[in-house]
Amino acid sequence: MPDTLRTLLTDATDGALLFGITPPRLSTSRERIREITAATLARLAPLAVDGLALYDIDDESDRNPDERPFPYLPTLDPAEYHADYLGDWTRPAVIYRCVGKYSELQLRTWLENADPARTLTVFVGASSHDKAVRTRLSTAQALRQSVRPDLMLGGVAITERPDEYARLITKHQAGCAYFISQVIYSADAAKNMVSDYYYACLERGLTPRPVLFTLSVCGSLKTLAFLKWLGVHVPRWLENSLRHADDTLAESYAQCLANARELAAFCRKLGMPFGFLVESVSIRKTEIDAAVNLAGELSTLLGRGESV
Amino acid sequence: MPDTLRTLLTDATDGALLFGITPPRLSTSRERIREITAATLARLAPLAVDGLALYDIDDESDRNPDERPFPYLPTLDPAEYHADYLGDWTRPAVIYRCVGKYSELQLRTWLENADPARTLTVFVGASSHDKAVRTRLSTAQALRQSVRPDLMLGGVAITERPDEYARLITKHQAGCAYFISQVIYSADAAKNMVSDYYYACLERGLTPRPVLFTLSVCGSLKTLAFLKWLGVHVPRWLENSLRHADDTLAESYAQCLANARELAAFCRKLGMPFGFLVESVSIRKTEIDAAVNLAGELSTLLGRGESV
Repeated sequence: MPDTLRTLLTDATDGALLFGITPPRLSTSRERIREITAATLARLAPLAVDGLALYDIDDESDRNPDERPFPYLPTLDPAEYHADYLGDWTRPAVIYRCVGKYSELQLRTWLENADPARTLTVFVGASSHDKAVRTRLSTAQALRQSVRPDLMLGGVAITERPDEYARLITKHQAGCAYFISQVIYSADAAKNMVSDYYYACLERGLTPRPVLFTLSVCGSLKTLAFLKWLGVHVPRWLENSLRHADDTLAESYAQCLANARELAAFCRKLGMPFGFLVESVSIRKTEIDAAVNLAGELSTLLGRGESV
Repeated sequence: MPDTLRTLLTDATDGALLFGITPPRLSTSRERIREITAATLARLAPLAVDGLALYDIDDESDRNPDERPFPYLPTLDPAEYHADYLGDWTRPAVIYRCVGKYSELQLRTWLENADPARTLTVFVGASSHDKAVRTRLSTAQALRQSVRPDLMLGGVAITERPDEYARLITKHQAGCAYFISQVIYSADAAKNMVSDYYYACLERGLTPRPVLFTLSVCGSLKTLAFLKWLGVHVPRWLENSLRHADDTLAESYAQCLANARELAAFCRKLGMPFGFLVESVSIRKTEIDAAVNLAGELSTLLGRGESV
């Protein structure tokens, strides 16, 4: 069972499905963290989700001068959260590493101790060129290649960048076995990136690596503002629909599902391996519940049925 | 019967369907024009098309410094073509007027003699700001309002422009009862424009006017280059698909139909009146045949069945 995700990503024949979680805030008590975690795992247990993704939250205020709609609050380190609280989670976890936050020694120690059967990782580079980093992305990639090549490495994919396929090729060649996108509201932008990457792989004789498309519902105009602050491209028609909807959450849910169907059909026709990651960028209960429902519908879309 | 189109556009409850035709080249013999016209009308006769659109071709080389992939060749004036050769066409014709080509007197004379039961018009402004014009668009609109208010006037809609909704509102207030888009390959761009226009109408207490989406198949990379020269936004993923397709025409046909379905579903949900116009920007027989087939499928999509 723990190897399902690895197999899905390696064979790239079927769509992997992840659920993304931001670790609890640093200020949360140990007891409360245990409660939150137990509740999350209980919600996810019946779903055919192949693994968790645990985010490494960085203060990205350097990236966007506008005020962050939700305040930045430090959260538990995802590796520590995984080690200390997620022993009951029997499926793999994809642990994000904002590599610039860590010294080379810290990363090396973590890599040496990580269990490749339970853990995968995604290395995230700096959020802006000006940001001071302790370890550069390329250094971290090389470190993992020499210290822990069996730890499955992924990279982030920003569909909004017109030249993103070239970055994916570079990451691919640096050892990335899969990619996880940022939150997608524009299916067109995602299709552009995947199409460019697919044909660039063919030209170079590379086998395309799976791209997991991240979907996140949006239950309020504040969440919409946050998505836009994060750099998510929301097409004007969709923003209009969300602003005028009687039920913003239901409207965004329907659109996430429509985008998932469009992306699945597009990738299947192209022969491009793909999967999905569902997360909630907000901590509101209604939005998290909707995310869990969306993951259930996506497992059906991926041909898994509703439960494991 | 001749009033079906007018009713559809006025009531804006159901989708109007037009077929767009470029009049024959000026150099064509009268006999050959009669043959071409008879063949075209025979093809269109069984289709549930509400009317023809007859383009007024202008030399738009001022608009784009790149070489025009298909050469510019002067064509018959659409009003003269309609009067001299289309007597057998019993349904209405939408006659385009590039108003900058004509003097006010020429336009006035044409307006005075046009038959509002058989004819509608679309006024097209200059293709660039620098172009010298004999009559400005606003002057032509005012002229029609005073000389021939019963001649149904439409305007062009360029979905690629981010502020196009504001131009549509201006045209709407200048008497335009409907809009016809340029060729659409990006459903997202079309949805953005229609959504912005719809909500701008609501804010101003206006009833939205129907937008007819123009679809045109693309059977070769040369036609693709021409579409791009015309200013049509082709999403990168779609351009990649067309470039790599074994059958470019079939691929573009499938995409035109997918875009039509997406636009119809979007407009129906929004409550926005819409319709379609099918044309072929190329004069190749395979592309014209595909356009006729597409019009047939769209009449089904619009709930008309295959034939009148």
